[in-house]
Amino acid sequence: MVSLDTLQVRKLIRQALAEDIGTGDLTTNALISPEQQLSAIYNTREDGIIAGLPILSLIFRELDPQINVKLLVNDGDRIEKGQQLAVVSGNARTILTGERLSLNFIQKMSAIATLTDKFQQAIRPYKAVICDTRKSCPNFRIFEKYSVGIGGGKPHRMGLYDAVMIKDNHICAAGSIEKAVKAARKAVPHAITIEVETENIAQVQEALFADADIIMLDNMPVAMMKEAVQLINGRAITEASGTVSLENVNVIASTGVDYISTSAITAKAGILDIGLDM
Amino acid sequence: MVSLDTLQVRKLIRQALAEDIGTGDLTTNALISPEQQLSAIYNTREDGIIAGLPILSLIFRELDPQINVKLLVNDGDRIEKGQQLAVVSGNARTILTGERLSLNFIQKMSAIATLTDKFQQAIRPYKAVICDTRKSCPNFRIFEKYSVGIGGGKPHRMGLYDAVMIKDNHICAAGSIEKAVKAARKAVPHAITIEVETENIAQVQEALFADADIIMLDNMPVAMMKEAVQLINGRAITEASGTVSLENVNVIASTGVDYISTSAITAKAGILDIGLDM
Amino acid sequence: MVSLDTLQVRKLIRQALAEDIGTGDLTTNALISPEQQLSAIYNTREDGIIAGLPILSLIFRELDPQINVKLLVNDGDRIEKGQQLAVVSGNARTILTGERLSLNFIQKMSAIATLTDKFQQAIRPYKAVICDTRKSCPNFRIFEKYSVGIGGGKPHRMGLYDAVMIKDNHICAAGSIEKAVKAARKAVPHAITIEVETENIAQVQEALFADADIIMLDNMPVAMMKEAVQLINGRAITEASGTVSLENVNVIASTGVDYISTSAITAKAGILDIGLDM
Amino acid sequence: MVSLDTLQVRKLIRQALAEDIGTGDLTTNALISPEQQLSAIYNTREDGIIAGLPILSLIFRELDPQINVKLLVNDGDRIEKGQQLAVVSGNARTILTGERLSLNFIQKMSAIATLTDKFQQAIRPYKAVICDTRKSCPNFRIFEKYSVGIGGGKPHRMGLYDAVMIKDNHICAAGSIEKAVKAARKAVPHAITIEVETENIAQVQEALFADADIIMLDNMPVAMMKEAVQLINGRAITEASGTVSLENVNVIASTGVDYISTSAITAKAGILDIGLDM
Amino acid sequence: MVSLDTLQVRKLIRQALAEDIGTGDLTTNALISPEQQLSAIYNTREDGIIAGLPILSLIFRELDPQINVKLLVNDGDRIEKGQQLAVVSGNARTILTGERLSLNFIQKMSAIATLTDKFQQAIRPYKAVICDTRKSCPNFRIFEKYSVGIGGGKPHRMGLYDAVMIKDNHICAAGSIEKAVKAARKAVPHAITIEVETENIAQVQEALFADADIIMLDNMPVAMMKEAVQLINGRAITEASGTVSLENVNVIASTGVDYISTSAITAKAGILDIGLDM
Amino acid sequence: MVSLDTLQVRKLIRQALAEDIGTGDLTTNALISPEQQLSAIYNTREDGIIAGLPILSLIFRELDPQINVKLLVNDGDRIEKGQQLAVVSGNARTILTGERLSLNFIQKMSAIATLTDKFQQAIRPYKAVICDTRKSCPNFRIFEKYSVGIGGGKPHRMGLYDAVMIKDNHICAAGSIEKAVKAARKAVPHAITIEVETENIAQVQEALFADADIIMLDNMPVAMMKEAVQLINGRAITEASGTVSLENVNVIASTGVDYISTSAITAKAGILDIGLDM
Repeated sequence: MVSLDTLQVRKLIRQALAEDIGTGDLTTNALISPEQQLSAIYNTREDGIIAGLPILSLIFRELDPQINVKLLVNDGDRIEKGQQLAVVSGNARTILTGERLSLNFIQKMSAIATLTDKFQQAIRPYKAVICDTRKSCPNFRIFEKYSVGIGGGKPHRMGLYDAVMIKDNHICAAGSIEKAVKAARKAVPHAITIEVETENIAQVQEALFADADIIMLDNMPVAMMKEAVQLINGRAITEASGTVSLENVNVIASTGVDYISTSAITAKAGILDIGLDM
Repeated sequence: MVSLDTLQVRKLIRQALAEDIGTGDLTTNALISPEQQLSAIYNTREDGIIAGLPILSLIFRELDPQINVKLLVNDGDRIEKGQQLAVVSGNARTILTGERLSLNFIQKMSAIATLTDKFQQAIRPYKAVICDTRKSCPNFRIFEKYSVGIGGGKPHRMGLYDAVMIKDNHICAAGSIEKAVKAARKAVPHAITIEVETENIAQVQEALFADADIIMLDNMPVAMMKEAVQLINGRAITEASGTVSLENVNVIASTGVDYISTSAITAKAGILDIGLDM
Repeated sequence: MVSLDTLQVRKLIRQALAEDIGTGDLTTNALISPEQQLSAIYNTREDGIIAGLPILSLIFRELDPQINVKLLVNDGDRIEKGQQLAVVSGNARTILTGERLSLNFIQKMSAIATLTDKFQQAIRPYKAVICDTRKSCPNFRIFEKYSVGIGGGKPHRMGLYDAVMIKDNHICAAGSIEKAVKAARKAVPHAITIEVETENIAQVQEALFADADIIMLDNMPVAMMKEAVQLINGRAITEASGTVSLENVNVIASTGVDYISTSAITAKAGILDIGLDM
Repeated sequence: MVSLDTLQVRKLIRQALAEDIGTGDLTTNALISPEQQLSAIYNTREDGIIAGLPILSLIFRELDPQINVKLLVNDGDRIEKGQQLAVVSGNARTILTGERLSLNFIQKMSAIATLTDKFQQAIRPYKAVICDTRKSCPNFRIFEKYSVGIGGGKPHRMGLYDAVMIKDNHICAAGSIEKAVKAARKAVPHAITIEVETENIAQVQEALFADADIIMLDNMPVAMMKEAVQLINGRAITEASGTVSLENVNVIASTGVDYISTSAITAKAGILDIGLDM
Repeated sequence: MVSLDTLQVRKLIRQALAEDIGTGDLTTNALISPEQQLSAIYNTREDGIIAGLPILSLIFRELDPQINVKLLVNDGDRIEKGQQLAVVSGNARTILTGERLSLNFIQKMSAIATLTDKFQQAIRPYKAVICDTRKSCPNFRIFEKYSVGIGGGKPHRMGLYDAVMIKDNHICAAGSIEKAVKAARKAVPHAITIEVETENIAQVQEALFADADIIMLDNMPVAMMKEAVQLINGRAITEASGTVSLENVNVIASTGVDYISTSAITAKAGILDIGLDM
Repeated sequence: MVSLDTLQVRKLIRQALAEDIGTGDLTTNALISPEQQLSAIYNTREDGIIAGLPILSLIFRELDPQINVKLLVNDGDRIEKGQQLAVVSGNARTILTGERLSLNFIQKMSAIATLTDKFQQAIRPYKAVICDTRKSCPNFRIFEKYSVGIGGGKPHRMGLYDAVMIKDNHICAAGSIEKAVKAARKAVPHAITIEVETENIAQVQEALFADADIIMLDNMPVAMMKEAVQLINGRAITEASGTVSLENVNVIASTGVDYISTSAITAKAGILDIGLDM
C-alpha cells in the first residue's frame, strides 16, 4: 500500500498549503481574533467510500500542532449522505485557513475510492482486481494511488522506475518480444518485474515464451482475451487494459484475467461532496 | 492571465518529472539505444479546446535541451478529432520518457478548457463570464486557472492571499456585514478587493451599503438573484455561485450577473483524449 | 495584514539561520557546555515602534523547541530607550547561536515601523495613509511589508501578481490609458484591481474615464495634485507618489489624497538599536 | 572575495524573482505583446561606486537566456550622476518583469559600496581597512559582503562557522581569556583563526598572552586603543569596533589599528538612485 | 540500469558542489585571472574499471556551460595505471573549482566498479551475478548502484519502496512465512516482487510453498545452500547473502545460486587513485 | 568541532530517509500492525570508537517524534564487540523503517572514528594531530569531519570557502609563492588563514618569508620534512601530507610536524559492524 506517512507526502502538503495561503489568509487574519477557538465537523453530502482522512491531521499539524483532529470513521468506510466524518477543534484562524485544502484533498481522494469501489463491485463474482495507470494528475499521483487501494483496487507501478512495461516502441526497437524481454531481464535488477503489452494471441504466445512476469492484454476483444487467459493458464499474471468502463468491466472480468487496469477510476472520478460545518 | 512561463511552473514540472521518472525509466534505458532519434505527433482523439501546449517544450527542455517541439495549433484553438497538434522530435529515449507526463498535462488542461468553453457557450447571449473557485487539485491550481482562461472563462483569485472573500463565519465573528467589510478594508492593502457572500436580499443590501467591491449571490433562487442584480445596479460586481451546472447556467446568466463561479469546470472536466503517435 | 505565521516565513527564517550558522557555531560549541542554561533580555537602546517580536519564537523554535520566549511588549507598541522587550531562556548554546539573527530581524523591522510611524505622524491631521513600494530588499519584502503595517502604514501590492499597475511603457504599448485599462480589465481576474500612473491632469481625466480603480499621481506638483484629487472626487482611490520625504509629506497629504506611497520608509530606515543582555 | 558566481547566489536570485513575480506579471502579460522587443539603459541619478552589475545577467538569464546585457562600466567604478551603466535588450515582457528586481539589487549594493568607499576615503592616510559585521539583512548577507569588497573594504567572517569570535559570555563561561583561547584552539580546525573581544588593556594583555590571532578593541577610548596597538605591536591583527561613524573613523584609524569593523556601512547605506530608461 | 541522467542526480551534484564551494573558492578567485583558460587530463594511477565519467560534464555544466569535456574511455572500460581518461578544457577558475568534486565522484565510483568486477571475475565459471544491498552511504546510493552495474554486477532494489523483502521480524509478526507472503501479496501492487529471507531448509520449503519470487539463502553453510538450490530447482530466483568475501565467493557461486548479494562491493571499495593533471 | 545539531544535518537526514523510503516501506506496511510496539538494542559486533549516536534520535524524530532513543554510551567511547550502545523503543513500523539508515550512518561514522583513532594511537608519543582532506564522499562530508573529530583527529577546512590553500597551479599563475600569498592576503578576509603547499626546502623558505599561516610539507622525504620543521621553528603551523599510512605515520610524526593530513582515515575506513537486535 502506498503510505501517506512519508516525508514526500508531508512535503506535498506543505507545498499545497503554500499554493493556497501564500503570504497569508487576508480575510481570516482581518476578521477573526487570534484567540478565537472553533470546533467544526466534516460531513458528507453524498454516499461513497471515504479516503484521505489521515491528511487532515497532516495539514493542520503543519499549520499549528495544537489543532485536534478526531476521526469518526476510517479510510475505506462506506459513508452515507449526512454522516459525520471527523471533528476538528482548536484555533479558529487555523481551521478556517486550512479548511479548503483539507476538503480539496478528501473530496478528490474519496471520489477516487468511491469510483474504484464501484468498478470493484461491478466485477464482484470474479477474481479480477482493478488497478490504475500512469495517467495521473501531475504531482498528485501518490494520493490517487493511495485512494485506489482504499477503494479496494490496487495501485499499479508507481512510475517508470519500479517495474518494466514493454510497449510497441520498445518491441520494435528490440526486434521482437523475446529479444525485448531478454534484454530487459539482463539490464534491470532481479527484483524488478517485466510486463509486456500484447495485442493479439501471437504476441501473447511470444510473451509467454519469453517468460514475461505480467502479460497485458491490450484492447483485445473479449473472446480473444478469454483465449489468451486460457493460453497463459497461470504461467504469467494477466492484466486487461484499454477502454474499460463501468459498463464493460464485468464482461472483461469474466474472461478470468487477474487485473484490469484503467485510468477511468482516477481521471473520471470528479469529487465527492464533503463539507466542513462550523 | 495566469502565466506558464514562471519559475513556479518550471519547478512544478521538474517535480512532476521526478514523480514519474524517479531513478530512471527502466524500460526505455534497457531497450532503446541512446543514439536513436524519433519524431512523434500529438493527435487529438476528441473534439475540444486545446490547452497546455507551451508545457510540452517546458517538459522536454528539462530533460534535454536538444528536443525540438513544433506546435501546429495554439492554446485556445478549437481542435477536432484526428487533428495534429504538435510534433516532437529528437532523442528517442527522452521522448519516450517524457511522453506520459506531457500527455497527462495537456489531457487534463484541455479538458478543463473544453468544459469551460461549453459553459461559456451555454450562456452566449449574456454578458456573464464563467470563473473557477478554490476547489482545485492540490499543487495543480495554476494549471487549472490557466486552462479556465484558455477556455474563455476567467480565473478567480489565486488563493487566500490576493483577495478578500467574506463568508458566514467571518460575518458572524465581525458582528455584521458592514462591520466585516469595514474591518477588512482597514486591514488589507488598498489594492485588494473585497467580496462578500450573500444569501438573501437583506444581505445584498447590507453588502451594498458596506461598499463591497464584489457581491456574491450564493445559492439564491433565480428570481432572487435577478432582484439582487437589479438592486445592485452596477454599484458592485455581481457573482453568482452555488450548484451551477451546464443545465442551469443559462438561466443564471439571464439574471444579468457579471460572473458565475463554479468548481464544475475544473472538478468534473476529466481528461480530453490526446495521444502521441510515433 | 501580511502574516508572519506562514510556511513562507518559516522557510525564510530557516534559510537565514543556515546563512549565519552554516556547519555550526564554532565559538559557542567550543566554549559553552551543552547543558548550560541562560536567561537573557531584549532591551531597546533607542525610542521607536517595536516590530518583529513574533520572529523571536519562530527563530528559536527552529533551533530548539525547548527555548522559552516571553514577550513583555507587543508589536506596534511605542518603546522607550532602556525598555525591556522580551525574555528568552533555555539552553545557553542555542540562545547564543540564535542571538544575532534574532536581533538582525527586529532591529531592521522596528526601524521600518518607526520610520513609517514618523511619516504617519507627520500627516496626522489628514486622512492619507502611508504605503510602501516594490523597492524592497530581495528576499526580505514580506518582513518589510509586515513592519509597514505595524508602523501604522499599509503595505501596497505584494508583487507583480496581485494587482495591476499601468505605467508609461504599458500605456505606450496599449495606445492610450483607456485602451490599457480596458485590455487589462479583460485579461485579469475580476478580483484584481487596476491602478494607473498619471503625470498630469489630462492623464488623470483619461484614467478616470477608463474607470481605473486607483489613480496614482506621480511626481506632481502639489497644486496639480490638489486639482487631481478634486477632479477625481472619490470616484477612484488616489495615491500620491514620487520623492516623498518627511519634509514634504504633510503638504502632499494636505491635497486630500488617500494614500502616499514611498520607498523611503523601507530603504532609508536603517536599524533600531536593540540588544540582548545576558 | 565573496563570489557572485555560485549556486547559492543563483538560488537567492531565483527566490527573489519568485517573491516579486509569483504567478505572473499581470500588467505586462496583459498589455505587452509577447513578441515585442526592447532596449533599455541603466542610468545612475547619483554619484557613487557601482556594485552588483554581474547580477543583471544572472537575473535575466533565469527569466530568458536570450536577453542581452552589455555592461558599460565595471563593479567598483566611480560613477557620476547621469552616467550610463549597462544596456539590456531583448524581449520586452522579460525586461519589464525583471526591471524592478534588477534595480533593487544594484541600488542597495551600490549604496553599500559607496558608503564603504566613503569610510575608506575618510581614513586614507592610514593603513586601516574597513570591514563589516554579522549585523546584516537576513538572506542578503552575501550581497552585502560582496559590496563591501567592491567599495574597498573587506568582508569579515561569513558567519558563525568560518572563524572564532570570543566575547564576554564565552570568556565568562571558560573562566578567562587564556582558558577560552586554549579551549577554542583545541576544539576548532587549525585553519580557523581566533579573535578575542577586549575592552581594556588588561584584557588585551591576556589575549596577547593567549596568542589570539586577532584582537578586537571594542568600544575603547582612542587613547586606550592607541596604547593597545602599541602594546600588541604586530603580534596579533588588531581590529577596532564599536560606534564607528564617518565622523570618528579617521581618529580611530590614526591609532594604527589594522581593521575597523562597523555595521554602519551596510545598515545605514540606504539605496543609490539608479533607474532603467526605456 | 540506474540512470545518471535524471533530475535527482543533477540535484545531488548541485548539492555536492554547494557543500564544497559554499560562498566561493577563495584561493582560485584570489589568484587565477577570470579570463585564464586551461586544459587538463584525467589520468588513472591504478588499474581498474572506470565508472562515473558522465558525471564530469554534469558537474562542469552546472558551473559553466562553456566547459568542454572529452571522454577518452567509456564507463566500464578496463583502465591501466597511467592511462588518460578524459580531457577537460575551458575557463581555468571553473576547472580548478570543480576539480576536487569531479575526482571524489569518479574515484569512489570506479573503486566500486573495480571491486564488483573482482567479485564477478572470482565466480567466472558460474552463472551467479553479484549484487549490492541497502547498506549504502547516505545520499550516495544511486551512484553506488550505478557503479555496481558498470562493474558487471546488478543493483538490488533501490529502497524500501520498490520490492518486498520479508525478514525475521516480519515473519514473526505475520505468524509464518506463508502468512507473510500471502499478506504481502495482497497488500502490494502486482508489479512488485516478494523476496523471503531463509536460514534453513525448512524455511526454504515454506518460502517455496508460499510462492515467493526470490528466496534469499541467508548465512547458510555451503552444503545447505547447495541443497536449497537443488530443492528450489528454478521455481524461484535464489540469492545467497551473508559474510561474502573475495575468498569465499567462488564456493558460494558453485552452489548454483542466481545472485550473491553483499555490501562488501560498496562498503569496502575505498577509492581508485585518479588524478587531474594540468 | 563540526556540529550535528544544525539545519543542514537535518536536511541531509531527511533526504537520506527519502532516498531509502521513497513512497513507503512496502514490507513493513504490509506485515506489521500500525499499533505494534517494539524495543530494540544497537549492539556492536566489532571493537572500535563509536560515532554518530546523536544521529539516531535525529532520524527517528523525523519519522515519529514519539520514538524513544536512549544512549548507553557516548560518541568517542571505546566500545567492545558485544557491547550494547543504545536502546530504541516505540512504534514497530517506524523502527523497522528507520533501522537501515540509522545503521548506515553509525557504521560508517564509527569506522572513520575508529581508523582516525588508530592513526592517532600510532603517533602517540608525538604532538602531531591527524586531520582529513577534501577527498570526501559527496554529500557526506560533514559526517566524515564530525567522525574525524570524535576519533581524536581534527577536521581540516570544510571546503573551498573557509581557508586558502595555495597549490602548484596557483603559485604558477601568481608568479611565485610570495606573490601568491600577498595577493591572497589582500583578497580574502583577515579572519581567513592561508596555507601553502611546498615540495622542497626552497619552497618552505619562500612560504616562510611570505608569512604563510600554515605550511604544508607535501610528499617530502622524512629527512627533508624534519629539516623543514626545524627551519620553520614555530613561525608557521606545519602540516605533513602525501601517501600517509598506518605504517609510515609514526615516522612522519617524529619529524615534529603539527598536523598530518590524510584521506586514508575517511576513504579507507569501510564500516564498523553494528547491528540492531529486536
